[in-house]
Amino acid sequence: MSELLATYVLTHREDEQINRKAEQIALGLTVGSWTDLPQLKKEQLQKHKGRVEKVLEKAAPAENGLYQSEVTIAYPEANFSADLPAVFTTIFGKLSLDGKVKLVDIQFSEGFKKILPGPVFGIDGIRKKVNVFDRPLLMSIFKGVIGRDMQDLKEQLRLQALGGVDFIKDDEILFESPLAPFEERIKEGKAILKETYEETGHRTLYAVNLTGRTFDLKDRARKAAELGADALLFNVFAYGLDVMQSLAEDPDIPLPIMAHPAVSGALTSSPEYGFSHSLLLGKLNRYAGADLSLFPSPYGSVALPKKDALGIYEACVKEDTVQKTFPVPSAGIHPGMVPVLIKDFGIDHVINAGGGIHGHPRGAIGGGQAFRSIIDAVIHEESIQDKAASCQDLKAALDLWGRVAE
Amino acid sequence: MSELLATYVLTHREDEQINRKAEQIALGLTVGSWTDLPQLKKEQLQKHKGRVEKVLEKAAPAENGLYQSEVTIAYPEANFSADLPAVFTTIFGKLSLDGKVKLVDIQFSEGFKKILPGPVFGIDGIRKKVNVFDRPLLMSIFKGVIGRDMQDLKEQLRLQALGGVDFIKDDEILFESPLAPFEERIKEGKAILKETYEETGHRTLYAVNLTGRTFDLKDRARKAAELGADALLFNVFAYGLDVMQSLAEDPDIPLPIMAHPAVSGALTSSPEYGFSHSLLLGKLNRYAGADLSLFPSPYGSVALPKKDALGIYEACVKEDTVQKTFPVPSAGIHPGMVPVLIKDFGIDHVINAGGGIHGHPRGAIGGGQAFRSIIDAVIHEESIQDKAASCQDLKAALDLWGRVAE
Repeated sequence: MSELLATYVLTHREDEQINRKAEQIALGLTVGSWTDLPQLKKEQLQKHKGRVEKVLEKAAPAENGLYQSEVTIAYPEANFSADLPAVFTTIFGKLSLDGKVKLVDIQFSEGFKKILPGPVFGIDGIRKKVNVFDRPLLMSIFKGVIGRDMQDLKEQLRLQALGGVDFIKDDEILFESPLAPFEERIKEGKAILKETYEETGHRTLYAVNLTGRTFDLKDRARKAAELGADALLFNVFAYGLDVMQSLAEDPDIPLPIMAHPAVSGALTSSPEYGFSHSLLLGKLNRYAGADLSLFPSPYGSVALPKKDALGIYEACVKEDTVQKTFPVPSAGIHPGMVPVLIKDFGIDHVINAGGGIHGHPRGAIGGGQAFRSIIDAVIHEESIQDKAASCQDLKAALDLWGRVAE
Repeated sequence: MSELLATYVLTHREDEQINRKAEQIALGLTVGSWTDLPQLKKEQLQKHKGRVEKVLEKAAPAENGLYQSEVTIAYPEANFSADLPAVFTTIFGKLSLDGKVKLVDIQFSEGFKKILPGPVFGIDGIRKKVNVFDRPLLMSIFKGVIGRDMQDLKEQLRLQALGGVDFIKDDEILFESPLAPFEERIKEGKAILKETYEETGHRTLYAVNLTGRTFDLKDRARKAAELGADALLFNVFAYGLDVMQSLAEDPDIPLPIMAHPAVSGALTSSPEYGFSHSLLLGKLNRYAGADLSLFPSPYGSVALPKKDALGIYEACVKEDTVQKTFPVPSAGIHPGMVPVLIKDFGIDHVINAGGGIHGHPRGAIGGGQAFRSIIDAVIHEESIQDKAASCQDLKAALDLWGRVAE
């Protein structure tokens, strides 16, 4: 009998009976009641009965004299259909409304994992697409896109590509608009990136923002693929993980999916409620097919606690039956952070910058070059001071933003 | 220029400059920057610039010496496409990740409201379907459905209907299963409720749980309509409001939608993060097409603070351009709560009970009758004591569960 294990953190008063609460969850969210059932019913329902797998009572103290306990419940897979909405409704439907309960982990059975696609491209596939294998990738973001026309966006795209970035992504708040329509962005973007490739020999991919009504997304994504789009940016938490899963599974949408964390803070930020960061932005994004997962880095202005950012990273890259998701720690990244980024997130992550590219004294070209230069220095264990002496763009960046201590 | 107004509660230290933070939100989530722009760009971008509509600084003290301020930002509708995922990404995308921010209200423009369906049936349409106009409706829920076969469910359905309830809903954790397939439940349910109608003259409707993969939902719902289903139960927060909107808009799915709050606690429970109860379970459910919205009552075991439950109620029924959503305060409801339910939620709500129906000494028939009897007493201003003297089922219920003080 296959089971799914869900781990919760309960925040509670000192005198609360956590073992009893765990039993109530295990029964209440499966067969309802047990001890009063006649023997025949018990035999019938045995394979549907939830059970308490583990209780770590008062694992940690919490604020205001409360405690946090960790409870793992095993749910028989026979109880739900093979889709994520059914899983969430079973393990965190009513329970999400029942006091201070945070869902921190899910362990899927090997059988259930088979129905989840995981990343179609993953880290390896993305690396092949950009033909870069020995360093973190570099991504830049359009700046101030609202109200700008195609001419402005094309110029921005060109400058960013000339800086040597591997990926350029749409801003997540750029939607379908007559100023810069989706299909136009793909076609014009493709033409410009072909030009810059011919000029520089460096390939840059453009992730276009897939937006609109849910039931139109597949058609729009197929159209994007037809038009030769490189990748899709997707605000998965404005839609749903199951929607992203369908995009990943569709053979007519053979495009990498870059999952943006927009709106996810509503689900992850509280220490007492919602989902853990590593579960939502790491494990679930990965199983549901995100080839890249963006999340706040521990260093910038919009920052995650370091253990949460590293938790997401781990969930993206640890060995599993599905491919790996490229982790993209983001927000407030500048060239002076590259040493600590590589120390914390290794080679297999994407360095993603907006202001740290566009705010460079020499603009996006200088910004991109500064990043590429310091990435090379760190990878080849060169002195950053020496590198800055021979690279004006890097020197200018470090003079402006400084270095973040490792 | 049409604008959408979003109101947030920020939880912050005493010395934080909330006016400045509000300006940062208004610019950062729209045109990015302003003061440094050349005059020509300013003219171009004027109609895309967000603005601070209102700041209520330190509106309330919060825990640990912190304060809560209320900030309303106006976002030009020109910035996003006409769909809820675009709205959420714009007004609560990045911002949901940026500290202690809770989205508590959205005011849509009259123009934007026109693209949101609202309830297709609403309170008036539902009342016509059940032919009951002068009292709260009564709904009951299947009990212990996991692992039960059609025979068991049919028997439960029959007994509940004979108790005189107006609605019977599936349990939200009942998914597609070989023991009780979706189509079978609709067909068999219909046959049984036809029988009980012929026996008693009272019409009972059955809301079947619409589940499965997102992109299959429309086909399944159309099939349900073809088979003559009465209504759909829908775990909207395991899918997305935009998905429910599409179900409501589809002319081939002419069925009332009963929105279940499963998983919504992950979005609403924290006082510092996520969405307010009244916004998510009230206003947004209503605009996106929920004919009925279930939420925890203020009285039961899984309970909401009374002001939150009343906030949802208000958002469901206040005058607006869209129809009204039937509020369904739920969880732990028994007959002794009916006086206070009607006092707090008036005539236009649905009284929804599981244990308070099935746990009656005479089973679901007695439970339903007890509810119907006390509803009649309250509506006709009869003495409940007198009513219980003439109705054994009511007396048994009040003896078992007592009365909740008004």
